[in-house]
Amino acid sequence: MSATTMRVARLHGIGDVRVEQIPVPEPAAGELLVRIEACGVCPTDARKFAIGVNDGSYPFNPGHEWVGRIEAIGAGSDGWEVGERVYGDTYAGYAQYATIGIRPEGWSRGALALGELPVERAVFVEPLADCLHCVRDQAAVGIGQRVAVIGMGAMGVQIAAVAALAGGDVLAVEPRAERRALALRFGAGAAAEPVRWRDAAAQRWGGDAPEAVIVTVARAAVAAEAIDACAPGGRVVLFAGFGDEGVAAVDLNRIHYQEIVVVGSEWVGTPPHQRYEHYEAARDLLASGDLKLEELVTDRTGLDGVGDALRAVREQRSYKTVLLP
Amino acid sequence: MSATTMRVARLHGIGDVRVEQIPVPEPAAGELLVRIEACGVCPTDARKFAIGVNDGSYPFNPGHEWVGRIEAIGAGSDGWEVGERVYGDTYAGYAQYATIGIRPEGWSRGALALGELPVERAVFVEPLADCLHCVRDQAAVGIGQRVAVIGMGAMGVQIAAVAALAGGDVLAVEPRAERRALALRFGAGAAAEPVRWRDAAAQRWGGDAPEAVIVTVARAAVAAEAIDACAPGGRVVLFAGFGDEGVAAVDLNRIHYQEIVVVGSEWVGTPPHQRYEHYEAARDLLASGDLKLEELVTDRTGLDGVGDALRAVREQRSYKTVLLP
Amino acid sequence: MSATTMRVARLHGIGDVRVEQIPVPEPAAGELLVRIEACGVCPTDARKFAIGVNDGSYPFNPGHEWVGRIEAIGAGSDGWEVGERVYGDTYAGYAQYATIGIRPEGWSRGALALGELPVERAVFVEPLADCLHCVRDQAAVGIGQRVAVIGMGAMGVQIAAVAALAGGDVLAVEPRAERRALALRFGAGAAAEPVRWRDAAAQRWGGDAPEAVIVTVARAAVAAEAIDACAPGGRVVLFAGFGDEGVAAVDLNRIHYQEIVVVGSEWVGTPPHQRYEHYEAARDLLASGDLKLEELVTDRTGLDGVGDALRAVREQRSYKTVLLP
Amino acid sequence: MSATTMRVARLHGIGDVRVEQIPVPEPAAGELLVRIEACGVCPTDARKFAIGVNDGSYPFNPGHEWVGRIEAIGAGSDGWEVGERVYGDTYAGYAQYATIGIRPEGWSRGALALGELPVERAVFVEPLADCLHCVRDQAAVGIGQRVAVIGMGAMGVQIAAVAALAGGDVLAVEPRAERRALALRFGAGAAAEPVRWRDAAAQRWGGDAPEAVIVTVARAAVAAEAIDACAPGGRVVLFAGFGDEGVAAVDLNRIHYQEIVVVGSEWVGTPPHQRYEHYEAARDLLASGDLKLEELVTDRTGLDGVGDALRAVREQRSYKTVLLP
Repeated sequence: MSATTMRVARLHGIGDVRVEQIPVPEPAAGELLVRIEACGVCPTDARKFAIGVNDGSYPFNPGHEWVGRIEAIGAGSDGWEVGERVYGDTYAGYAQYATIGIRPEGWSRGALALGELPVERAVFVEPLADCLHCVRDQAAVGIGQRVAVIGMGAMGVQIAAVAALAGGDVLAVEPRAERRALALRFGAGAAAEPVRWRDAAAQRWGGDAPEAVIVTVARAAVAAEAIDACAPGGRVVLFAGFGDEGVAAVDLNRIHYQEIVVVGSEWVGTPPHQRYEHYEAARDLLASGDLKLEELVTDRTGLDGVGDALRAVREQRSYKTVLLP
Repeated sequence: MSATTMRVARLHGIGDVRVEQIPVPEPAAGELLVRIEACGVCPTDARKFAIGVNDGSYPFNPGHEWVGRIEAIGAGSDGWEVGERVYGDTYAGYAQYATIGIRPEGWSRGALALGELPVERAVFVEPLADCLHCVRDQAAVGIGQRVAVIGMGAMGVQIAAVAALAGGDVLAVEPRAERRALALRFGAGAAAEPVRWRDAAAQRWGGDAPEAVIVTVARAAVAAEAIDACAPGGRVVLFAGFGDEGVAAVDLNRIHYQEIVVVGSEWVGTPPHQRYEHYEAARDLLASGDLKLEELVTDRTGLDGVGDALRAVREQRSYKTVLLP
Repeated sequence: MSATTMRVARLHGIGDVRVEQIPVPEPAAGELLVRIEACGVCPTDARKFAIGVNDGSYPFNPGHEWVGRIEAIGAGSDGWEVGERVYGDTYAGYAQYATIGIRPEGWSRGALALGELPVERAVFVEPLADCLHCVRDQAAVGIGQRVAVIGMGAMGVQIAAVAALAGGDVLAVEPRAERRALALRFGAGAAAEPVRWRDAAAQRWGGDAPEAVIVTVARAAVAAEAIDACAPGGRVVLFAGFGDEGVAAVDLNRIHYQEIVVVGSEWVGTPPHQRYEHYEAARDLLASGDLKLEELVTDRTGLDGVGDALRAVREQRSYKTVLLP
Repeated sequence: MSATTMRVARLHGIGDVRVEQIPVPEPAAGELLVRIEACGVCPTDARKFAIGVNDGSYPFNPGHEWVGRIEAIGAGSDGWEVGERVYGDTYAGYAQYATIGIRPEGWSRGALALGELPVERAVFVEPLADCLHCVRDQAAVGIGQRVAVIGMGAMGVQIAAVAALAGGDVLAVEPRAERRALALRFGAGAAAEPVRWRDAAAQRWGGDAPEAVIVTVARAAVAAEAIDACAPGGRVVLFAGFGDEGVAAVDLNRIHYQEIVVVGSEWVGTPPHQRYEHYEAARDLLASGDLKLEELVTDRTGLDGVGDALRAVREQRSYKTVLLP
C-alpha cells in the first residue's frame, strides 16, 4: 500500500530551502496522485530560490518539469490507469508524490500520458514544447532558412535542434567550445563565437543575413544587435527574459524600413494564443528517438541536494540538473 | 496630335525646384506614354526637396502617385488602349507626360488600369495599398479587434478607415480636433487626444488594452509607449519612419513575457514579402465607393506652385495636396 | 430560497419529448447552478428529435444555446457572483435550471460571463462564434473580397453579416425574397436567387468570380457548383452538414489546376484546431450593438411547446425559435 | 565567336517531333542569350507530344526546365556576365540556344543565377520549387507531422524528401519496390504498397491518421480515398492533374464534420498567390548539397532522341530523362 507521508524540498524564503516530511496529498475529483520519478531543475526554479517567489506563497515547491507513475486516481478521472507514466507541469515536483488535474487549469496543461518514454528524456516535455513554440510559431522557421541561435544553454541547444529538424540551416552562437560542439551534434550546421558570429554568418550564407535570429541569453545588447543583424523581413525572437537588464536602445528605423518582426517567445501557454498542442508534439518527438535529450543531463541530485543544485543552476555551473527524489 | 515638349517640375538640389520645358518621352517597348491628369504630393517628395535625393540623381522628378490617360503605346504592350486611365508609381509625376512599364520593375508596380475612377480619388491608389498592407498583413486586424491608430495625418486616417472596414473597433489618437472629427467620419469608433488616449482606451474597452497599436507619427517615444500600451499577444506596427529620432529605449521584457509583436510597415513592395496585389485591392476598394478619399484633398497646385506645395507639406501646413499639371 | 424541483423537456426516443418535473441539479465543485432565462432551439436539436440521439442516452436534454443567471456556486468556483448572467453550451438548456462548469470540458466551453447582454441576443453567442470561425478561420475573408454565401437561414444571415463586418463584399444567395431582404439589412451588398446567382455575381464583380463561396445549405450539388464557381486560389467552405445527401461528384482538376481550397467549417471546438476564443469575440460583438441578432428571432415557446417547436424547426417552418422556460 | 544557326527539336503536331536547323535567336532588350547545357524532359512535355499543344502554336519547343551559360546579353540587362550559369523556365529548352528575360513575365520566372550548381542537379530547380510550394504552402508540413505521400515518381520522391526536411515523418506509398527504396534513401521514414498503406500508417503512428496526404498520381479514386484517410483537421493536397479521370465521388460530410482541407498544388506561379521566391529557395537547397537530385536521373538523350524520350516518359518507362543538346 501507499505511503502516508513523503519527503519534499520546499522554499521558505530567499535562499531558504528545507527538506520536510509532509502528508502525501489526496487526489481530488478530476486529479491523479503520481509517484514522482524525476523532476527537471529549471533556471526559473533557481530564480525563485535566489530572488524570491512572486507567484505563490511560502512554503513553495517550485519543480514544474516532473515525471512519474500514477499511484491513485481521483473520482471522475476515467481513462487513466494506475502505474501509467505521466508528465506534470504544476509546481509540485520537488517531492516524492504530487497530484495533477487531468484537465488543463490555469497555466498547467494537466496530466499528459507518456507511454514508456525514458524518465530522463521525459523531463524535457515542457521545455521542448516551449522550443517548438519558439521555432514554429514565433520564428516560423522553414526549409532552407538561415537561422542564428544565440546562446547554447540547454534551451538554446533544444531550439537549435528543433530549428534544424524544421529544415533550417542553423548557426549556433556560443562562447564555450564544448557547447558549440554539442550544438553541432544536435543538428546545427555551423557554430561560432559571439564576437565573430556575424562574420561567420556572412561567410556561411554568401553575404546574406539570417532570416531568423533567436536570442536565448539575457542580455539586452545582444537583442539590439540581433535586430541589426537580421535580414529584411526577418524575425528576431526574444526567447530569454532579460531580468534587470531589460531596456535596450533599439533602432526603430530598421524595424520600420526593413519590416523586421521582433517578437517574444515565453512559453506555449502565454495568452491569448495558447498552443497547448505542443506538449503532445514534444512528447511524440521525444518518443520518435530523433532527439535524445537525456544526453543534455549533466547533473543529478536527491532531495537533500536541491539547495546546492539550485545554486549551481543559478550560477550557471550546471548545464541541466535532474532531481531524482 | 501629341505635343513634342512638355512642362515638368524637377529638383536640382536641396530646396531647388525648377519648372522646365523638356521633350515628351518616347514609350519604349513594353511601356505606355501617359498624359498626366493629377499627381499626389507626398511627404516623401517633400523630404527629398528638403534634405536631398538619396535614390537618384539631379535633375529629379519625385512625383510617384500619378494618374493619367494613355497617349501612346510602345511595342509589345498589347491589351492597352489609347485614352484608358491608368495609375503609375514611377518617379515621373510632376510633369505633363510620363512613361510607365506595363510590367512591374524594381519598386514600380507598373501601369494599373483604373477604369473611370475619379482622378482625385485615384491618386490614393498607392497610399491606400500601403495602408491595406499595414492593416491586413502587419497589424492583422480582424472583426471586433481593439485597434489604436496614433496620428491622424492623411495616412493615419486611411489606416483608421481600413481598420474599421476590416471589422476593427478603432480609437483614433490625434491632438487636433478637426482631424479627430475626420477620423470619426471615416469609420473610427472613437477619438482621443494623445495625452489621454490610454484612459480613453481603457474606458472604451472595459479596461482591456488595444490588440493592435499602429504608429503613424515619427516620434520614437510614441513607439515605445505603444509597446507599453499594447495587450499581451498584440501587435505594434511602426508605419512611420522615424528620421533622426529613430532610437528608442524599449522594454524587452514586455516583448518577451507578453509575446508582443513589434513589426514595421513600409510599403507593399518591401522585400522579401512583396504584396503587389494590394494595388488592385486598393483600386477596387476606391471603385466601390466605400472610401471617398478625395475628401482628404485640401490643396491643389499647378506645376509653378510645386515649390510652395512641397514646403507646405514638409511643414505640415497642408493635409493632402494634389498637383494638377 | 431556491426551488428544489424544476420542469424540463427531455427526449425519450424518436419524436418523443416529455415535460417532466425533476430535482434541480446540485452544482458540484467547479460548477455553477444557473436559472435559465432562454435557450435557442437549434436545427441540431430538431435533428436529434427527428432521427434520434447519437451522442448520449435517453432521457436527453438537447438544448445547448442557453442563457441565465447564476443561482448558486459550487466549491472552488471563485470569481463568479450570484445573479450574474452567463452563457452555457452544455446539453441542458430545455429546463428551468442547469449546471455548467467554469472551465472548458469536452466540447463545452464552460460558463461565459455575459454582463447585461439582452437575453434574446445572448442566445446567439454559440451560433455566432461558429460563424466567426467560418468567416475568419475557414473562409479567411478580408477587406474588399468577393464573398458568396449560399442560403439565408439564420446561420447564413449571420455569416453574411460577419463577412460584411470583415470587409467582404457579400452576395447573399437565397430563393425567398424576405430572406434576401433580411440579408441586405444585415450587411450583404447584394442578393440573388439561386438559379441566377452566378450571373448576378459576374455582373456585380465585373466578370470576376467570388474569392470565397460559403455553403450553408445541405445539398451536395450546391457544394459541387460552388467549387465550379469559385475564383482561382479561392476558398469553398462547407458550413452545412449534408446528411444523407453527402456524396458529390467533384471536379478534382479544378481543385488542382486552380489551387482551390475546399474546407469544412463545423464549429469552434472541432479538433485539432479549437478556437474557443471566438466565444468571447462573439459575446463582445453582440455587446457592441453592431449585430442586433434578436431581430432574427421569429418564434418563442414555453417548455410545453417544445415538441411543436422542434417539428417546426425540422420542417423549416420556423426561422429562429427561442425557448423561454 | 558564336554560331549563327542551331539545332532544335520542335513539335509540329501530335506525335510529330522534328530536329531542325534554325537561326540562333537574338537577345532583345532585357533578355539573355543562353547556350543550353541540359534540359529536363517533363511529363508535361510528353503530354503535349502525345495529345497536342493547347497553349501555343506549331512548331513548338516544349522544354521548360533548362540550364545553360550566358552567351550574350541584350541591352538594359545589367548585372549579368557572359559565361554565368543560369536557369530558364520558358518553352525553349529543346535546343542549343535559348533566350530568357531577366524579369518575370507571364508564367516565366525569368533568368535565375545558378553559381556553379552542377548541371544535372540544376535541371530540378523548377520541379523542386513546385515541391516546396506543395509541402510548405499547400500541405503546411511541420516538425513531427504525419505525412503520407502517394506515388513515388520523380516528383513524389522530391515531395517526400522536402517533407522530411521540413520535419515531417513521411510514409511513402508506391507499388514498385525500387521506388520505395529510393524514397527511404531520400528521407522517407517508411514505405508501403498502395493496397496496405492505411494499415502501415496505423501501425507506424499508433493508430493515428496522417495529418497530410499528398496525392501525386493521376487517379481520382486515390484522391477520394485520401480524403477518407486523412486525420481530422488535416490537409489533402492534390499535386497531380487528373486528366480525363478528374471527377471523383467525394464525401462532403467528412470534409465538413472533420474540417478537412482539400487543396490543389499546381506550381509556384498559380495565380493569385504566386510564390516565385521558391525558385531561389530550390536553387539554394540544391546548392546546400542536402538533396542530390541528380541521382534521380535515369536516362539521357541528345536532340535526335527526343521523340523516343518523350514516348518513354509518356509511357512511364523512364523515371527522369535529361536532354543534353
